Amino acid sequence: MIIYCYSALDEPLWQQLRDRLSPPHTIYFRAESPSKEDTISHFQEADYLLGNPPVEWFETVPANLKFWQLDSVGMNQYAELPLSNETLVANMGDWFARPCAETIVGGILALYRGLDKLTLLKQKTEWIGHGLRPQLKIIFKQNVVVLGAGTLAQAVHAVLTGLGCSIHLFGRTSSLANLHSREELLSELPFADVVINTLPGTASNFADAEFFSRMKTGSVYASIGRGDTTDEKVLIEALQSKQLDGAVLDVTESEPLQPDNPLWKMDNVILTQHTGGGHRDEHIGKVDLFLNNIFAIENGGSVINQVDLKKGY
Amino acid sequence: MIIYCYSALDEPLWQQLRDRLSPPHTIYFRAESPSKEDTISHFQEADYLLGNPPVEWFETVPANLKFWQLDSVGMNQYAELPLSNETLVANMGDWFARPCAETIVGGILALYRGLDKLTLLKQKTEWIGHGLRPQLKIIFKQNVVVLGAGTLAQAVHAVLTGLGCSIHLFGRTSSLANLHSREELLSELPFADVVINTLPGTASNFADAEFFSRMKTGSVYASIGRGDTTDEKVLIEALQSKQLDGAVLDVTESEPLQPDNPLWKMDNVILTQHTGGGHRDEHIGKVDLFLNNIFAIENGGSVINQVDLKKGY
Repeated sequence: MIIYCYSALDEPLWQQLRDRLSPPHTIYFRAESPSKEDTISHFQEADYLLGNPPVEWFETVPANLKFWQLDSVGMNQYAELPLSNETLVANMGDWFARPCAETIVGGILALYRGLDKLTLLKQKTEWIGHGLRPQLKIIFKQNVVVLGAGTLAQAVHAVLTGLGCSIHLFGRTSSLANLHSREELLSELPFADVVINTLPGTASNFADAEFFSRMKTGSVYASIGRGDTTDEKVLIEALQSKQLDGAVLDVTESEPLQPDNPLWKMDNVILTQHTGGGHRDEHIGKVDLFLNNIFAIENGGSVINQVDLKKGY
Repeated sequence: MIIYCYSALDEPLWQQLRDRLSPPHTIYFRAESPSKEDTISHFQEADYLLGNPPVEWFETVPANLKFWQLDSVGMNQYAELPLSNETLVANMGDWFARPCAETIVGGILALYRGLDKLTLLKQKTEWIGHGLRPQLKIIFKQNVVVLGAGTLAQAVHAVLTGLGCSIHLFGRTSSLANLHSREELLSELPFADVVINTLPGTASNFADAEFFSRMKTGSVYASIGRGDTTDEKVLIEALQSKQLDGAVLDVTESEPLQPDNPLWKMDNVILTQHTGGGHRDEHIGKVDLFLNNIFAIENGGSVINQVDLKKGY
């Protein structure tokens, strides 16, 4: 068994991976390879692959690749790879859903409850107290539209349920969604206090000028999907014109966000710098899932979170 | 019908109150009174009272007072007033519960998801992005102890349920609580990732040295009850020694917080400056409840949120 690990794991996790694999096995970690030639030749020997190597590495696909564990949810960049039909692929499933939901709903609560302003006041040792109260909003009983109906949207739905929101999921084919067409969505937008975008990268510029023009005055836009699903220029205009009351953005069109991007200087914008899926046990979960899936394959079990790269899910 | 309004309402709400009362009525607003003598004499004429006047105003209790709508939940300062048994009193019930729950859980999410650090980075136009992810925590499936089992604790419970937490409420007599004695509580503390204090002011220094010594290393303390229920000196020591990973404080022993209080300078402390119960429609709710209760009394209905000042609930 030859394993190639592209994911940037720390050394205690290398050891854990080695210890938990039954011998005999060979495992290559990207960071251990002395040269680019070694890297590519180790990669091409792999039976099992963990992580998301650059697309160009697959110009020659590893000939014996039995299983590839992506360390992301998205896989658009790999749609055209000439993989053998024998190669099983899995993504991270709902591993990032809860951390993402906590970041995006936490960001909305921060905006509503003035936590960003309170953080800046604390830095200045400045007490305002009661004077801040008339600016604060509550999300209880508000109307929220969630773009998407996948694992991330479902985690967001769970959190919003506890907050007492009325929730509409948008998804073309999902039975969990109650908005199925763009027309249905556009008719609901004028009634939404908050819109949360969880769309994958296939929905380029989905939130466009028409979309924002339908959003209610004083509402909030939040995005934790992919940066290119939002027309950022139009979003910025909607914030500048005060049509929107604020935005919470985990993703932006370019990352890092360019220093001259106006979003940096806008009050009522919270930028979470694509940290949404992260947490201190993030990599342990990748190793766990990889090992579980290797074990399943070696023992005739079924792969968790199996996906089809061509379909993208 | 003579009404005295102590609550600091804005003028549109004065008008709303006047418009919605059926004539004949006389209504005095505190801010309208030209002199202290007038203020006290108007107060003493009142059949109906809205708001929380200073205790000393009651040295002579208004002789005809039929109903007093407090604009708070707490009422400890009024426990000894020589009110007639004929006077009905109501508090704000669960009106502040949801805003408080959103602030305190929002504050915990902000701490867990690094939103305070991200706000400071935004102010400096500084992108760190992925490098922040290993510091982040998630609350999903964590163990939370809530001190109290009243309306505020119940609202916190609802929000935490959506976040997928395991929740224990502490309340001596409440059937909603699953921790009833201090001994039961102290035995649970070592297993709690987060403790949220919603206790009323009657529980002075409840969270004391013994209490904090039982809390788990790396856990988080949050308080939205009353400032004097936490021994702040001990809390500060527990934060300085890194026994606690952080704190979210809506209330402190003195408010405004003194400029030399070490909490101002501590990373991993979020100070919400007693804004927890506030929101932009805060005063509308007071007027609504006051009018509903006047209507109930005038028409033989029952008073919403009726309380007994001597009992304190």
